[in-house]
Amino acid sequence: MSLTAVGSIAFDSVRTPFGERERMLGGSAVHFALAASFFTEVRVVGPVGADFGDEQLAVLTEQKIAVDDIERIDDGQTFFWRGHYDHDMNVAHTDETELNVFAAFEPKLSAAACEAETLFLGNIQPDLQRDVRRQSSAGFVALDSMNLWIETARESLLAAIADVDCLLLNDAELRMLTEQPNLVTAARAAMALGPSVVVAKRGEYGAMLFTEKGPFAIPGLPLEEVRDPTGAGDSFAGGFLGYLDAVRVDGKHDERALRRAMAYGSVMASFNVEDFGTERVAGLSQDEVAERLAAFKALTHFHE
Amino acid sequence: MSLTAVGSIAFDSVRTPFGERERMLGGSAVHFALAASFFTEVRVVGPVGADFGDEQLAVLTEQKIAVDDIERIDDGQTFFWRGHYDHDMNVAHTDETELNVFAAFEPKLSAAACEAETLFLGNIQPDLQRDVRRQSSAGFVALDSMNLWIETARESLLAAIADVDCLLLNDAELRMLTEQPNLVTAARAAMALGPSVVVAKRGEYGAMLFTEKGPFAIPGLPLEEVRDPTGAGDSFAGGFLGYLDAVRVDGKHDERALRRAMAYGSVMASFNVEDFGTERVAGLSQDEVAERLAAFKALTHFHE
Repeated sequence: MSLTAVGSIAFDSVRTPFGERERMLGGSAVHFALAASFFTEVRVVGPVGADFGDEQLAVLTEQKIAVDDIERIDDGQTFFWRGHYDHDMNVAHTDETELNVFAAFEPKLSAAACEAETLFLGNIQPDLQRDVRRQSSAGFVALDSMNLWIETARESLLAAIADVDCLLLNDAELRMLTEQPNLVTAARAAMALGPSVVVAKRGEYGAMLFTEKGPFAIPGLPLEEVRDPTGAGDSFAGGFLGYLDAVRVDGKHDERALRRAMAYGSVMASFNVEDFGTERVAGLSQDEVAERLAAFKALTHFHE
Repeated sequence: MSLTAVGSIAFDSVRTPFGERERMLGGSAVHFALAASFFTEVRVVGPVGADFGDEQLAVLTEQKIAVDDIERIDDGQTFFWRGHYDHDMNVAHTDETELNVFAAFEPKLSAAACEAETLFLGNIQPDLQRDVRRQSSAGFVALDSMNLWIETARESLLAAIADVDCLLLNDAELRMLTEQPNLVTAARAAMALGPSVVVAKRGEYGAMLFTEKGPFAIPGLPLEEVRDPTGAGDSFAGGFLGYLDAVRVDGKHDERALRRAMAYGSVMASFNVEDFGTERVAGLSQDEVAERLAAFKALTHFHE
């Protein structure tokens, strides 16, 4: 079992109704890898700049995340995102994006990164996702994206989606991509593009899984403290794919494993939003993860 | 087992992206009673006008709903609502409301209506809800309301809520009532007002139950055809309270029964939205209800 993740490695400055932080460690690959590291061996691929120090690397290596595919560009700066949330914490408002070292990023995966059995293509420009996909020999590949690429790089994104097993998007993005206002119809249209597994993320309302076996829905855990939702979708993907990579049997995922993976994804996302940046997930114990899985079961199960 | 429901009995004219209908039978008491009639004996209390004919009554009596507490005002017209939905079917837009016979309604419950073991106070002016509550000797009383009464009759609504066992509101209304942006905190604040059971309805995202035992969440069934959401909340309440009335043991509801009731509420709401007005629910079979309960279990359950 092994999992390679490509995506942004970033500094995030975030303001929410519950506080603000400057230049926290963030990015889709970082949030994903921290969540996935509770389940399997993870390797992060992506560029950082001269401002990325040992302190940031240590957050990853302390969770035994392999960092030798993190490329350091000494004459560049790390990707930077500044954003804020108002009282509807389901909606992120972007105030500033600096691509920095990502502008000229040309992924070159190490042999170990290519050979990982599972690949996560985090939310970056779809041409980069396709480039990484071509280098990988993974048996299960998942892709995340966003409205920006649906609007500005649609053809490349469709080509990227055609070549993966699993698509993860917000429900609104799934509707936008397929131009279908109904979520069930949108999911079916997305499966017709290539992926056999489609996950619709729904913020505080949880997530839905669509496969040929039919739909599965998991609600969000009702939390009293939601301090910063940044990275929740990537934490979800990390729990989901990390668990699938850990239990994979002959390269196939059965429905039972996929549902359990949805629960683990929700567990990791629920921790992520409880504090700013990576603070909550990086400090988690396996016991806390197990307890929260039980909380999800208690939240959702009923007896006929 | 017996259940009395007070609320509007109405003609609804509705337009959605999927069609329109003029002067359909509707109203909170009607949608509630049709859903509840699959589980228990239901009696409807409320006024109608000279325009309310045998055809409308027959929709209720065919489901064995007791209609002798429906008061006919021969020199008045039945309550009328006109509204429409755009592509976000979670939001109803009101175009016209004619109170008609409801303007002078003074509830006088029959002995049978007073003695019912369960009482549903559907969404009407809270002074009327309190009047009905005073006349009833029910062991379990539930109340539904809306943003209009939170804004225009807050003190009376708070007094009504203080005297019921169960409060059902949309999640946005629950936040508005309690002035708490967080749903968990809002539900706790609502329980502090009196009710030991609080249900937050969330449209297509399902519903949440809050009791002293903790939260329970059930997602909405993903449907390809949502033709008219009018009455979905009342159909939910009908399935929820109808089931609770049918299984009540010594006037107390256990957590297991409450969760199953949430599932039955969701079942009846999911049928309601599949066609205009009462068309789908009035024509249902017990087999269809049982099949859909199984579909909800398949939708939500996972194995640890």
